[in-house]
Amino acid sequence: MASSIATPAVESPEQKSLIELRCRVDRRLETLLAESASDDDPVFRAMRDSLLAPGRRVRPILLILAGRELGGGLPALLDLGCAVEMIHTASLILDDLPCMDDASLRRGRPTMHRLYGEDVAMLAVVALLSRASGVVAESTGLFAQQRTQMVERLSRAVGIQGLVKGQYEDLHEACHVRSIEAVMATNTRKTGVLFQAAMYMAALAAGADETVIEHLDRFALALGQAYQLCDDLSDGGAAQGKDVHQDRDKTTLVSLLGPEEVRGHLAGQLEEADRHLSAVYGADSPLSRFMHGLFPLFR
Amino acid sequence: MASSIATPAVESPEQKSLIELRCRVDRRLETLLAESASDDDPVFRAMRDSLLAPGRRVRPILLILAGRELGGGLPALLDLGCAVEMIHTASLILDDLPCMDDASLRRGRPTMHRLYGEDVAMLAVVALLSRASGVVAESTGLFAQQRTQMVERLSRAVGIQGLVKGQYEDLHEACHVRSIEAVMATNTRKTGVLFQAAMYMAALAAGADETVIEHLDRFALALGQAYQLCDDLSDGGAAQGKDVHQDRDKTTLVSLLGPEEVRGHLAGQLEEADRHLSAVYGADSPLSRFMHGLFPLFR
Repeated sequence: MASSIATPAVESPEQKSLIELRCRVDRRLETLLAESASDDDPVFRAMRDSLLAPGRRVRPILLILAGRELGGGLPALLDLGCAVEMIHTASLILDDLPCMDDASLRRGRPTMHRLYGEDVAMLAVVALLSRASGVVAESTGLFAQQRTQMVERLSRAVGIQGLVKGQYEDLHEACHVRSIEAVMATNTRKTGVLFQAAMYMAALAAGADETVIEHLDRFALALGQAYQLCDDLSDGGAAQGKDVHQDRDKTTLVSLLGPEEVRGHLAGQLEEADRHLSAVYGADSPLSRFMHGLFPLFR
Repeated sequence: MASSIATPAVESPEQKSLIELRCRVDRRLETLLAESASDDDPVFRAMRDSLLAPGRRVRPILLILAGRELGGGLPALLDLGCAVEMIHTASLILDDLPCMDDASLRRGRPTMHRLYGEDVAMLAVVALLSRASGVVAESTGLFAQQRTQMVERLSRAVGIQGLVKGQYEDLHEACHVRSIEAVMATNTRKTGVLFQAAMYMAALAAGADETVIEHLDRFALALGQAYQLCDDLSDGGAAQGKDVHQDRDKTTLVSLLGPEEVRGHLAGQLEEADRHLSAVYGADSPLSRFMHGLFPLFR
């Protein structure tokens, strides 16, 4: 499907290859979804609309680049990336619901509960999460033992210690004054855990050793922090197609430290992320370049 | 934990053994939950309160009895049964939410969103579903290949063609006049699919052959229909500790055919269920006796 993400007028071979990768992810998402559902079902339409909305596919591309450079097979990496994208999409629908952030806009479009009703939006969350575990469980080109380890890891990333806890803290604790450490812990649960699970799956799919797994885990943590800081810094929201000032009453590192210091923190997290990438892939890897492309103002 | 379910004054050895089995399920549920979470988290409390509320543990006991008679190991069957109970519990919390049935009572107690708020109830749904897939993925005593097949099957049972679709149809289509076939199809999605998944896992855990899998699948379908018919017949609700007349505006087989004919249908489904059980276990198996114990008025 067509993407609305702006691309430079002159594309380098690497940029072209990234765009091609994003298209492959989009096509595979569509196929994996179509395999699961019937056409006229509003829950299916909500799943499809949210999952296939134009997006950068950051998590699938990170997973694929991380695993491919280590020798992992593309079909498996593609499926694993799509499963992560399904979970990410489910978390966005959930986050937007009236009893959560009560958002009206996401990626510049009405949120799912505005389009389809709250019940359908919630059922789409459940269906996307279920589909994700099914996709991992039946992903081809992997040993069954690898797939069970991945399902287990994803289950933890989503569950009571992961995205669920991050979502709860974001709703109930972010409005109180909190320490820098507490804010960072919530940021990890909101964003880092799914990056960590994606990197774990990439490493496992490629048969990487413990040292690589550990470096990729720490890369994912740093990237998660950077991602969340960038989100906090840009909370005018409009540039991201979200409701403006959604987070204005929340304690973020920006409200605690001010934007200048947070920019410094963000740059520090990217350096930390790069250190771990270098240990695995050497300096200036495709994965590192992709990461820096996500933060054009911080290089 | 103590159960409030009434038991006869004089217990047969088989009744005692069932009570002991129910206690083991309760203890295992508690352990599996405790492994996943921290104490002071409201989402965890909602998970625990809903999962460990006194209940008959019908699905775990069916799964364990079905698998044990075929030679399956108890530890694996216990974990698989607990995973199914987690999914069932999540489906009840979801069903009760304001945007779904908006129920205030469940099993004689306030529903989760009344106790903890809608956001926490929803996060508990997500956390229970995630935990269930994790429990299956890491269940001991099974080959990894069996576990991935089970995760995949559960994913389908929950997803867009399973519980999710049943829930949607129950909300949006049950209020229209529908055919008997359409009502039965919804009943299967609401109830039968999870019984089917439970029986599939029992058979797989015991290494049963295709014929056994097929008989247990058809047993599960018939039992699911019987279960739903019984629920429709008793929709005064009070006996089940649910809101009274929750379903009064819905098209059920009772509203289409009247209670007498539905009683006949129910008895027919139990006969069908028994036929398939006999083919696998011979006449008068523990599983058959347990099933009939669930429908004391229909023997």
